[in-house]
Amino acid sequence: MRPAIQIFPVYGIGDVVTGQSVSALIAAGLVHSGMTLVAGDILVVTQKIVSKAEGRIIDPRTVTPSHIAQMCAAQGHKDACYYEVVLQESKRIIKMDKGVLICETHHGLICANAGVDESNVDGGTHITLLPVDPDASARGIRTEVGAATGVEPAVIISDSFGRAWREGQVNIAIGVAGINPLISYAGLDDPFGYRMQASILAIGDEIAAAAELVMGKTDRIPVAVVRGVSYEQSPSEASALIRPANKDLFR
Amino acid sequence: MRPAIQIFPVYGIGDVVTGQSVSALIAAGLVHSGMTLVAGDILVVTQKIVSKAEGRIIDPRTVTPSHIAQMCAAQGHKDACYYEVVLQESKRIIKMDKGVLICETHHGLICANAGVDESNVDGGTHITLLPVDPDASARGIRTEVGAATGVEPAVIISDSFGRAWREGQVNIAIGVAGINPLISYAGLDDPFGYRMQASILAIGDEIAAAAELVMGKTDRIPVAVVRGVSYEQSPSEASALIRPANKDLFR
Repeated sequence: MRPAIQIFPVYGIGDVVTGQSVSALIAAGLVHSGMTLVAGDILVVTQKIVSKAEGRIIDPRTVTPSHIAQMCAAQGHKDACYYEVVLQESKRIIKMDKGVLICETHHGLICANAGVDESNVDGGTHITLLPVDPDASARGIRTEVGAATGVEPAVIISDSFGRAWREGQVNIAIGVAGINPLISYAGLDDPFGYRMQASILAIGDEIAAAAELVMGKTDRIPVAVVRGVSYEQSPSEASALIRPANKDLFR
Repeated sequence: MRPAIQIFPVYGIGDVVTGQSVSALIAAGLVHSGMTLVAGDILVVTQKIVSKAEGRIIDPRTVTPSHIAQMCAAQGHKDACYYEVVLQESKRIIKMDKGVLICETHHGLICANAGVDESNVDGGTHITLLPVDPDASARGIRTEVGAATGVEPAVIISDSFGRAWREGQVNIAIGVAGINPLISYAGLDDPFGYRMQASILAIGDEIAAAAELVMGKTDRIPVAVVRGVSYEQSPSEASALIRPANKDLFR
């Protein structure tokens, strides 16, 4: 029996440095992996390589910690320069407790430490920031990989986020292109003819989570192809996945 | 190229009624779908059919609404009997605002309306509750499907939960058997030799999310097989995915 959904790791994408084209690396990685894209394929690309390629890397020793960054360092596990970078990436602090900062980023994403990440950058002396506009990054990859391969895939830029109430991180979609990251079952009839309540699934986040299962953290597999998902092609943005403040009980 | 991960819908599982064996239905569904389980396969089973089989269905007209259930109905979108059922399924209310109740269930799960669900039950006059012990349900399915097929799969009982800050629901794991739902990258060396910070992924939730992509809400596909995921076989329980209150900033 054929599986409905297949997830392929894209091999051969090595270290990424500022100025490289993620799209060119992906196109080469697909060739290296013996893969040909087909219509409907979704490329899931980890934020880390996009940030590196776009130069969203900073040496924390170049920033001057503010008073509140020093207070964070006194209570948290990182140094004051790290927290200053986190604060500069934030437009609002949702919670600051138990050594953790839950931030609203300039994109409107709510996550620990504004998505600022120390791991996996050369020697640990630099840290990565989220892309300035992950939807634009996704659109660029969609267009460029389409030009290189002849098939324009949907693209999701993913990152690992923690959740309220639950242990462990899951990958979610912080940027999208060519896919509506929400699917609505509102108003559909269920098998009993009962009109269902609105039921909206965040398939953008589910696809990002599914792709993470082939990526791992240390295997240098920053890109996966997800094949077989039913989705609406649309010019949506990942902000569709962010709950508006007036509907949100937790900020 | 072979995909690393494959997700198969299990067809042929019709309406489920109280007293039926979910395991027998799954075994028959696998045959109907032309599928043979292989070692390492993960069965993802939606909560709804488990609840129905276990008789976790209630006619809300049989309960007497308390005062606070009547207050919920005055502010919310459902009637007081519905909210009384929700309150009886809860041990604590995390938030009550904007017509929404965020509850901590007797299992410790935190979700809207304690997982009580009106949809997809005959005529809408009954509502489903979460299984009493989803881990026990998962263990039973693991053992019984193993006996029927000769291959004991890992089992995840899934449900669609909303999230703080993000739009749309995603499937998560509320019961597990034969799989550690968390995987830790703590202490691994990254490709630069930099010792990574603790990074724990909730693969149980990611697998549940991936399976949802083949299920839909009205397609009568309540079970999927996820093949190819690397995971630790262990006697873990889904409570491993619930953040302890003393580490939780949002309750």
